[in-house]
Amino acid sequence: MARAICLLSGGLDSATCLAVARREGFETYALSFDYGQRHRQELAAAERVAAHLGAHAHRVARIDLRVFGGSALTDEIEVPKHRSASEMDAGIPITYVPARNTIFLSFALAWAEVVEAETIFIGVNAVDYSGYPDCRPAFIQAFEQMANLATKTGVEGRTKLAVRTPLIELTKAEIIHLGLSAGVDFGLTHSCYDPAPNGKPCGQCDSCLLRAKGFAEAGVADPLVP
Amino acid sequence: MARAICLLSGGLDSATCLAVARREGFETYALSFDYGQRHRQELAAAERVAAHLGAHAHRVARIDLRVFGGSALTDEIEVPKHRSASEMDAGIPITYVPARNTIFLSFALAWAEVVEAETIFIGVNAVDYSGYPDCRPAFIQAFEQMANLATKTGVEGRTKLAVRTPLIELTKAEIIHLGLSAGVDFGLTHSCYDPAPNGKPCGQCDSCLLRAKGFAEAGVADPLVP
Repeated sequence: MARAICLLSGGLDSATCLAVARREGFETYALSFDYGQRHRQELAAAERVAAHLGAHAHRVARIDLRVFGGSALTDEIEVPKHRSASEMDAGIPITYVPARNTIFLSFALAWAEVVEAETIFIGVNAVDYSGYPDCRPAFIQAFEQMANLATKTGVEGRTKLAVRTPLIELTKAEIIHLGLSAGVDFGLTHSCYDPAPNGKPCGQCDSCLLRAKGFAEAGVADPLVP
Repeated sequence: MARAICLLSGGLDSATCLAVARREGFETYALSFDYGQRHRQELAAAERVAAHLGAHAHRVARIDLRVFGGSALTDEIEVPKHRSASEMDAGIPITYVPARNTIFLSFALAWAEVVEAETIFIGVNAVDYSGYPDCRPAFIQAFEQMANLATKTGVEGRTKLAVRTPLIELTKAEIIHLGLSAGVDFGLTHSCYDPAPNGKPCGQCDSCLLRAKGFAEAGVADPLVP
């Protein structure tokens, strides 16, 4: 059975990505990160999603990106609220975490080498990417190329490692339809950057606004919204 | 003043690399990792070396590579001892940590973005690299290419990020001479994979054997060996 490492944040994109990998028949190794994010609900969501979708294994790697500072998700800067689509598009958001996908994919690469997985799935999206440079196809291709030189696999000429991005060209509405068709329960996912202590989404941050727009355009109710 | 991130393990290669960056006039940001290694003396050495060489800042990023297993440096496998040069050359050593340099460089990239450093120094070496795939020039070039697509710098067309490897073509003896000329005190460094609780090197692991060979060929006494 072919193995795949699936990056899993607990949000709807990565849940959909894991479901796609499962539907294709991969034995999946779901990987989440405890990176000092100021809310922990996303890790609980990742655990629920991994169990629900039948991941073969789920690991949470502890890393501390706060050591460098630089983002509202890991620092004490306030999360922006009520921004319009054009404000979100105007540049790289302050919620940007430096080199985050590079770091996450590097850990996926390490696990891939240990379990001899030949595929890494990551739910990046170039449509709603909100200015994150490490969500672009050119970045993913460059990472894949580097990865094939970084490991024993590359040296010993074994099978090539592939980085798969099944969501990269999809709108949020299309991702929601894909996820539903592949068996995702979006009620188990978590998207908010600034949830209440009980886990309730704020409904006002960029991530909540993009999620609401996606469900509206998909013509589907968000099970997280009463 | 140009800024550089310098990966610093506390060994003689990375100490030399930091000294070279300092001699070239960079304001240096030394970066070490607490990655669950079973001996902690190398972090103490990194701290001594950073202070001695006048690094502007020194951070230790906590990551846990043990979550994936796969190496004698982070697992309970025994470190090999008394191996000959041909045994060391015969393949990738069990002390190999999967994707280690990829992960370390990814963190360096994050810090580079935060402090707007345009250079990353890493003390990899392709001569004595003992089969580590992520010490080869082709890997470094691919990482650099990927890094320039991963960050705000790449998106906004600012200065290109460079990954510098001043030791890559040097023998261990040449590294020792370079380090001495650049002001490294090798008595502050640490190389052993399996030191005694008091920090004394075992003298028998691959790293101790390569270090001893290097000092012998350089015609210099190792200050760590009484």
